[in-house]
Amino acid sequence: MCDLASGIETNTIGRQLYECIVELYPICRSITGDGVRETLRRLQDTIPLTVHEVPSGTEVFDWTVPREWNVRDAYVKNSRGERVIDFRRSNLHVVNYSMPVHARLSLEELRPHLFTLPDKPEWVPYRTSYYSDSWGFCLSQKQLDALENGEYEICIDSSLKPGSLTYGEYYCPGESRDEILISCHVCHPSLANDNLSGVAIAAYLAQHLCRISRRYSLRFLFIPGTIGSITWLARNQEKVPRIRHGLVLACLGDGGRLTYKRSRRGDALVDRAVHHVLPQLGDYEIQEFSPYGYDERQFCSPGFNLGVGRLSRTPHGRFPEYHTSADDLGFVHPDQLAASFVALLKIIEVLEGDRTYVSQNPKCEPQLGKRGLYHSIGGLAHSLTNEMAMLWVLNLADGEHSLVDVAERAGLSFETVRRAAESLRDHGLLKEARVA
Amino acid sequence: MCDLASGIETNTIGRQLYECIVELYPICRSITGDGVRETLRRLQDTIPLTVHEVPSGTEVFDWTVPREWNVRDAYVKNSRGERVIDFRRSNLHVVNYSMPVHARLSLEELRPHLFTLPDKPEWVPYRTSYYSDSWGFCLSQKQLDALENGEYEICIDSSLKPGSLTYGEYYCPGESRDEILISCHVCHPSLANDNLSGVAIAAYLAQHLCRISRRYSLRFLFIPGTIGSITWLARNQEKVPRIRHGLVLACLGDGGRLTYKRSRRGDALVDRAVHHVLPQLGDYEIQEFSPYGYDERQFCSPGFNLGVGRLSRTPHGRFPEYHTSADDLGFVHPDQLAASFVALLKIIEVLEGDRTYVSQNPKCEPQLGKRGLYHSIGGLAHSLTNEMAMLWVLNLADGEHSLVDVAERAGLSFETVRRAAESLRDHGLLKEARVA
Amino acid sequence: MCDLASGIETNTIGRQLYECIVELYPICRSITGDGVRETLRRLQDTIPLTVHEVPSGTEVFDWTVPREWNVRDAYVKNSRGERVIDFRRSNLHVVNYSMPVHARLSLEELRPHLFTLPDKPEWVPYRTSYYSDSWGFCLSQKQLDALENGEYEICIDSSLKPGSLTYGEYYCPGESRDEILISCHVCHPSLANDNLSGVAIAAYLAQHLCRISRRYSLRFLFIPGTIGSITWLARNQEKVPRIRHGLVLACLGDGGRLTYKRSRRGDALVDRAVHHVLPQLGDYEIQEFSPYGYDERQFCSPGFNLGVGRLSRTPHGRFPEYHTSADDLGFVHPDQLAASFVALLKIIEVLEGDRTYVSQNPKCEPQLGKRGLYHSIGGLAHSLTNEMAMLWVLNLADGEHSLVDVAERAGLSFETVRRAAESLRDHGLLKEARVA
Repeated sequence: MCDLASGIETNTIGRQLYECIVELYPICRSITGDGVRETLRRLQDTIPLTVHEVPSGTEVFDWTVPREWNVRDAYVKNSRGERVIDFRRSNLHVVNYSMPVHARLSLEELRPHLFTLPDKPEWVPYRTSYYSDSWGFCLSQKQLDALENGEYEICIDSSLKPGSLTYGEYYCPGESRDEILISCHVCHPSLANDNLSGVAIAAYLAQHLCRISRRYSLRFLFIPGTIGSITWLARNQEKVPRIRHGLVLACLGDGGRLTYKRSRRGDALVDRAVHHVLPQLGDYEIQEFSPYGYDERQFCSPGFNLGVGRLSRTPHGRFPEYHTSADDLGFVHPDQLAASFVALLKIIEVLEGDRTYVSQNPKCEPQLGKRGLYHSIGGLAHSLTNEMAMLWVLNLADGEHSLVDVAERAGLSFETVRRAAESLRDHGLLKEARVA
Repeated sequence: MCDLASGIETNTIGRQLYECIVELYPICRSITGDGVRETLRRLQDTIPLTVHEVPSGTEVFDWTVPREWNVRDAYVKNSRGERVIDFRRSNLHVVNYSMPVHARLSLEELRPHLFTLPDKPEWVPYRTSYYSDSWGFCLSQKQLDALENGEYEICIDSSLKPGSLTYGEYYCPGESRDEILISCHVCHPSLANDNLSGVAIAAYLAQHLCRISRRYSLRFLFIPGTIGSITWLARNQEKVPRIRHGLVLACLGDGGRLTYKRSRRGDALVDRAVHHVLPQLGDYEIQEFSPYGYDERQFCSPGFNLGVGRLSRTPHGRFPEYHTSADDLGFVHPDQLAASFVALLKIIEVLEGDRTYVSQNPKCEPQLGKRGLYHSIGGLAHSLTNEMAMLWVLNLADGEHSLVDVAERAGLSFETVRRAAESLRDHGLLKEARVA
Repeated sequence: MCDLASGIETNTIGRQLYECIVELYPICRSITGDGVRETLRRLQDTIPLTVHEVPSGTEVFDWTVPREWNVRDAYVKNSRGERVIDFRRSNLHVVNYSMPVHARLSLEELRPHLFTLPDKPEWVPYRTSYYSDSWGFCLSQKQLDALENGEYEICIDSSLKPGSLTYGEYYCPGESRDEILISCHVCHPSLANDNLSGVAIAAYLAQHLCRISRRYSLRFLFIPGTIGSITWLARNQEKVPRIRHGLVLACLGDGGRLTYKRSRRGDALVDRAVHHVLPQLGDYEIQEFSPYGYDERQFCSPGFNLGVGRLSRTPHGRFPEYHTSADDLGFVHPDQLAASFVALLKIIEVLEGDRTYVSQNPKCEPQLGKRGLYHSIGGLAHSLTNEMAMLWVLNLADGEHSLVDVAERAGLSFETVRRAAESLRDHGLLKEARVA
């Protein structure tokens, strides 16, 4: 297995990812309901997702799958019958999981149900009310200021009743049953970075990687945040021990630098792989684990403690557009999406390529020259790097150091080390310590 | 057990501590003798100390309890019969453990027995001669310079003969027989910071804590330095394994910042507790262990290696007033004494409150909302901190992390973490891993 | 065992080392051949070296002992019969291991066989061709520029045929069969720093140390680089486990600071000993292990993984004179050679003196005063240091800390700590944990 990114043209992949986001952007998603179903159906044009439906009321660990929410229309009409707040213009206008309501209220009666961002008077906030029975509208401060006193007709044509929770799963077998998990949340309505960026990248990663022969099996989850990962974990406990590495994808399209949040373990191979790859790709940040965030919270709960980290650009909550109407199609960029995509390929390349070798000539160096391995590759500087990589691999091929260890200690790129190891292995100088 | 400092009014405790020092200051103490007895008798007004007498000649490990020393009077009279050096003005004037002597000497004969501080001409040094038979006087350089040639009558009306070594002990049982040891040296004569500050604080800590129900039993020792701790350890070897944590108190009343010297182990719980508490209380310093200092030397000798550190303000030897007459009642401050007292309560609070929990819902997060634990406490910022604390406690409740570990990793105060843990425990989400 | 450097007069030893280099400088050495034999014969005037001959064709691990190379003369004559390149002026002029050749060639035909350093037009490079059948001359760029077109007579009167590989070995028994290995390469022709500096120092170290009673046995190897250490290791596998510590000596006479390269283990006792000694001797550098360098590569191969580091001044490849005619007798200095020699004695002193003790009074401090150990040595500051050293040794005498551990933790010199330990041991306060 080598160079997973070969054949990837960044302009092309950037455009594909962006177009995927454009297509999914108008759909009103929530943690349940037809928006998720429609989203998964469209993703099936890219990858053969399996769609799972888990009935409302199903107990999943300490939680219960909620009632299903759907909304067809929602508005606030003024006394002249004009829609002054209109779901058809943006699905952010209705508080997600609002109960159905149809009533006539004075502005004063309505006000407690209206949510704005006074600091950002042009933006509409995104609000949810999953676990308390209520309803509300989100609007810009400017819209609110323009509302006249008087009576308003308000309508939320929603339903909140037993149904199911919907999620998508795509399992793509590799040589081993050991798995790499890629997970993203699909529960946010018209918000581009959070998290159509993650959804689009997961889908295209799946499409790309499943065409390539790999060591690891891959599992892609398109799930509603929190309740989705809890539901999947509760229903698939027997599969959990096979998850060797994993990444939660979120907020990968904005202009910020790549930011990785370590797994709870902190030094899982995925943590080390990312720490190895990101410095080669420009500015970056590594955050320690914390139990607040996206679905890594569940994968890293103490009963699972998986080697699952999270890759983002600007993390949620640290960009002002977060959870507002300003997280729109102008907030994400094809080139940033493409760069995130390539970073993920490089990370997975390290996970795929890591091996532990045992030298077949552990006493003194083997003679590289007689095998044509000395000064045998490329130009001089390149060749010296390759020879150093071979010497390092041989020196640490004691069955206790993997190639990632070698790359870290030698200060060389994983790719250089892996190629040196493969060359040595092909000449009979190394054997794999264990088949992973 | 919560908030040990509740009910403490710092002005009040500062004044009490200072008054205790004022009362004990004039007494001439040494490593044996009536000065220690009188000191302990007065402390019995505050706490029900047991006074132990260990006969001279008793073998204690490699040492022998020395003869008992008492002094009634001491002076140097000039030819006009005037007391030019007078024990009645300051007990520092006689070298501690001086043999009895009564003689007439020329100034030249006297000079080798006179000790001054030429750099500090107004100050009288404090000198001892425990283990060699000699005698001497301490005086200011100014006094020495004023001495005229001629004959002097010198008298030290002391006795040095078989008697006993006296120390005070107060044991205050808690729920467990595991102990926290608080030790201070009571062997210095009229020196305020070193160590009436430690003596007063130990006595009032005992008074305060023994009224409160606690997990740990508390043992307070009021002992002469070195020989006292050696004597106690030799006579109480069967109790030593119960000492789980300990602190030596010394020099706690001067104007300097709090300074903690780690135990030999370096990462004992008391070391970590202090390292957690001090940064919350202002400027501080943490010193690594060294085998030089006060009685932590004995508690941390390799055959015991107890988790015993030392809390001071400016450590002994690092303030010019150390072991001189300038370490007087003006050198210690009620507010500094009170702040030292509060710091000790906070440290003990951590020791008392530390627990290791096991999550009862280790797989995925439990649903805090349905238990009213979400946004359930106080204002928003406060509430977010509490929620983070709950998430951290749950995430690390794997039976391998104590609350101190959680506080360190989360960067939250121990109190916040402890409260979060108690709340979760009360809702059945946590169980203690082991009863300590 | 104490102060290995006693009796060493640095001017004298510096002059001896320099004169040794002067004597060996003209000899044309290679990885085999009479130059090595002659070098070893001369060293036998200083130490009773055993000379080993290993036949060409002998298999040593993955390598084969090569044919033996000797050269009697070599030149390039111009059309006037003048030797424009002349082996008799410098043995660097012939590429080491050149095949015999005698021919007439035009300058253009000759050119691919000529090697210069265009950046250093006055210097002649040093080149080898051990493992490919070829021939060549090295000359200065200035010499090359002066060559006129025309026909040249070229002659290399060498032989390359079955013979043997020659190396020197000197084993000097100590109380224990455990060994310290000192190794240096003897394969370079007229190059002073690389590595006659190492050869001379190894020889005089051997002479000096073998006169002193020591704990460790010493083994000195004078071997051709790479193939020599591989040959020795292959023929002496049963002795390898006795090598407890080792040092490769190279480039020890130039004006640079002392530079130590750690063993592969990184924290072997020799690594710690050097890290302790060098800061006391002036500017220095510690490098992490890398599998590139001199014979430490073989001693630290994963099948041996010995505690063998390398001591140099400016490491090979980091001074411009490296592997050129400018590494001549003016490039090495008697005072630098002497300082390297003394540093090695200090390092070996730590290895020799390190012990692990167990306190015979582990509970509380023993009473030093009654044994005359308190204030018993020298002036006050000195005495305080000695008392601190005694307290540290006693405190850490738990059978788990060696004197190097004590010196590191106490921040005291090894010598101070060792003396304190010996004094305590002589008073019955310490016993050795294990006889090494």
